[in-house]
Amino acid sequence: MPPSRSKIETLRLHGHRLDMIDQRVLPAEFRVESCTDAAQVAAAIRNMVVRGAPAIGVAAAYGVALEAVRQQDQSPKEFKSALERAIALLSASRPTAVNLSWALKKMSDKWHAVRHQSPSHIAQVLLDYAQTIHRDDIAINQRLGSHGEKYLNDGARVLTHCNAGALATAGHGTALGVIRSAVQAGKRLSVIADETRPFLQGARLTAWEMVQEGIPVTLITDNMAGHLMAQGEIDAVIVGADRVAANGDVANKIGTYMVAVLAHRHGIPFYVACPLSTIDMSIASGADIPIEERSAEEVTGFRDARWAAQGVSVRHPAFDVTPAALVSGLMTEKGVLLSPDHARLAAFLGQ
Amino acid sequence: MPPSRSKIETLRLHGHRLDMIDQRVLPAEFRVESCTDAAQVAAAIRNMVVRGAPAIGVAAAYGVALEAVRQQDQSPKEFKSALERAIALLSASRPTAVNLSWALKKMSDKWHAVRHQSPSHIAQVLLDYAQTIHRDDIAINQRLGSHGEKYLNDGARVLTHCNAGALATAGHGTALGVIRSAVQAGKRLSVIADETRPFLQGARLTAWEMVQEGIPVTLITDNMAGHLMAQGEIDAVIVGADRVAANGDVANKIGTYMVAVLAHRHGIPFYVACPLSTIDMSIASGADIPIEERSAEEVTGFRDARWAAQGVSVRHPAFDVTPAALVSGLMTEKGVLLSPDHARLAAFLGQ
Repeated sequence: MPPSRSKIETLRLHGHRLDMIDQRVLPAEFRVESCTDAAQVAAAIRNMVVRGAPAIGVAAAYGVALEAVRQQDQSPKEFKSALERAIALLSASRPTAVNLSWALKKMSDKWHAVRHQSPSHIAQVLLDYAQTIHRDDIAINQRLGSHGEKYLNDGARVLTHCNAGALATAGHGTALGVIRSAVQAGKRLSVIADETRPFLQGARLTAWEMVQEGIPVTLITDNMAGHLMAQGEIDAVIVGADRVAANGDVANKIGTYMVAVLAHRHGIPFYVACPLSTIDMSIASGADIPIEERSAEEVTGFRDARWAAQGVSVRHPAFDVTPAALVSGLMTEKGVLLSPDHARLAAFLGQ
Repeated sequence: MPPSRSKIETLRLHGHRLDMIDQRVLPAEFRVESCTDAAQVAAAIRNMVVRGAPAIGVAAAYGVALEAVRQQDQSPKEFKSALERAIALLSASRPTAVNLSWALKKMSDKWHAVRHQSPSHIAQVLLDYAQTIHRDDIAINQRLGSHGEKYLNDGARVLTHCNAGALATAGHGTALGVIRSAVQAGKRLSVIADETRPFLQGARLTAWEMVQEGIPVTLITDNMAGHLMAQGEIDAVIVGADRVAANGDVANKIGTYMVAVLAHRHGIPFYVACPLSTIDMSIASGADIPIEERSAEEVTGFRDARWAAQGVSVRHPAFDVTPAALVSGLMTEKGVLLSPDHARLAAFLGQ
């Protein structure tokens, strides 16, 4: 059974088992994938059972905690090395989203603070802390949504790319969280969803979430956004982010850059919904953000269907970089930073 | 059996039967659809068995001729009304490509010139004339290719959108014809093919044609073009056209406009390969070009696969308009017109 309309539980802890909605098979099937150790969680992240930067961060935190529980009867030395291996494995599961390393660092710091305790005590502390990260993510998205929704007018037709929704987070969503908050504030919005090839997060996940919420949603292929903007059918764009560099450049799902260039040409505001955990001040600019290159099979077809001609080469960058100059504003749980650049972003963060 | 590498016969007349490669099932299957009357040809155009503006024009010409042959034993009066119905039916099969009405007008004019002859004589004249239009299309593409290829440097990495190849024409192709001509002239080119959702003409047809020709081809999803341009991996863009307005605005497959905006931003030349039959001086600007809206089913999935969430609305404009200001040059069989606008286009055409 799909979850009720107001509550999409992307991740849920049951005792010592993490259940995640399998986002590869939505919306045709609603299937839950269960993990009880770090290797399973790392595989689920790599295979995109769970995707979206904030959701990946929460899943990774649980991955560390579950591994700690599994290893809690080992000697302190074996426990330590098992946990280090688990963190390294999770860290390597996807390269672009900064929330992954952010969550792993938080878990490591917590571990460090109680490292002289027994393995079973450490395991309990880490399991509690992963749940805190989980709850915080939802609360952060709700604050982000409250700040961001003020920038959407009643009646706005909002284009989004990929899925920065409840499914991409622990709940509520970032870009779709802003839309949810606007609707909760009484605004009538409609959403235009880019289908977002090759993984079709827009067609499968964003469309599904909006239908669940009863928010009007229109699906287009990625190459239609420019035409709709030229026809005056888009009032604003909101997307999520996998990583924001210190100068405000934004790495997000492949195709985001094209949408930003077009929005700029048409004078349409282009907002990025990004929890502070997505902002990586250690990276000077987008040029330094690693861009994951995924498999050819995802481009030559979809699932079991293959339609591309045999013998063709393939490129598959999974993300691209949108320069800060094209970003109208960064929407965070701390407020909205308009026209981001290095100085303004540092000041905004109080650094 | 697929055709030999140098010869893709998109359309072929066998006696009183028109065989067309079924472009819906390529490249997984190589199937030929046979038509013996205008209704069958109109259905093949509407259903996209045959697609691409020049190929549609040639198919429509054959549709008129085959109907004339089929009706040649009728009374002159019945023959006339049957032929008029056939032309109206073919004319309504697709709205955007101007070659369709161009070819039908040529057939009507030819009919008018021999209208006092017997139906069987008229039928033979029209059948011969459709073959002339067919042969002319190939010759025109070859001349277009010779003019256009001078604008491509040795080693160029050329992005194309949709399929303006041999399959979109009677042979050789327009955009891909320029690439073929450049390769025949000894240049080493590589092609980057946008997959071109929703009908996937790039993944299925352009990739297939280039593999057949032994020209290196790399497939990307439509939303990757901007990233590749930003990375310096694209040297030129060539696309086809469904209709060019008097001011140089270009209607072409949905997504062309986005590619043009991005090429402009990155200083990459953006060429449109358009036989003179594609230029419609009766239309002042792109705003007056009718844009076909096709079915939702083509956007919510592909063939039998459906992946979009139930309950989602869909937009499906099949074409968009690229303003002349974004077009570096129009490549025609008469030569290449750089920086097209109304005055320059009229002068180029000798009007």
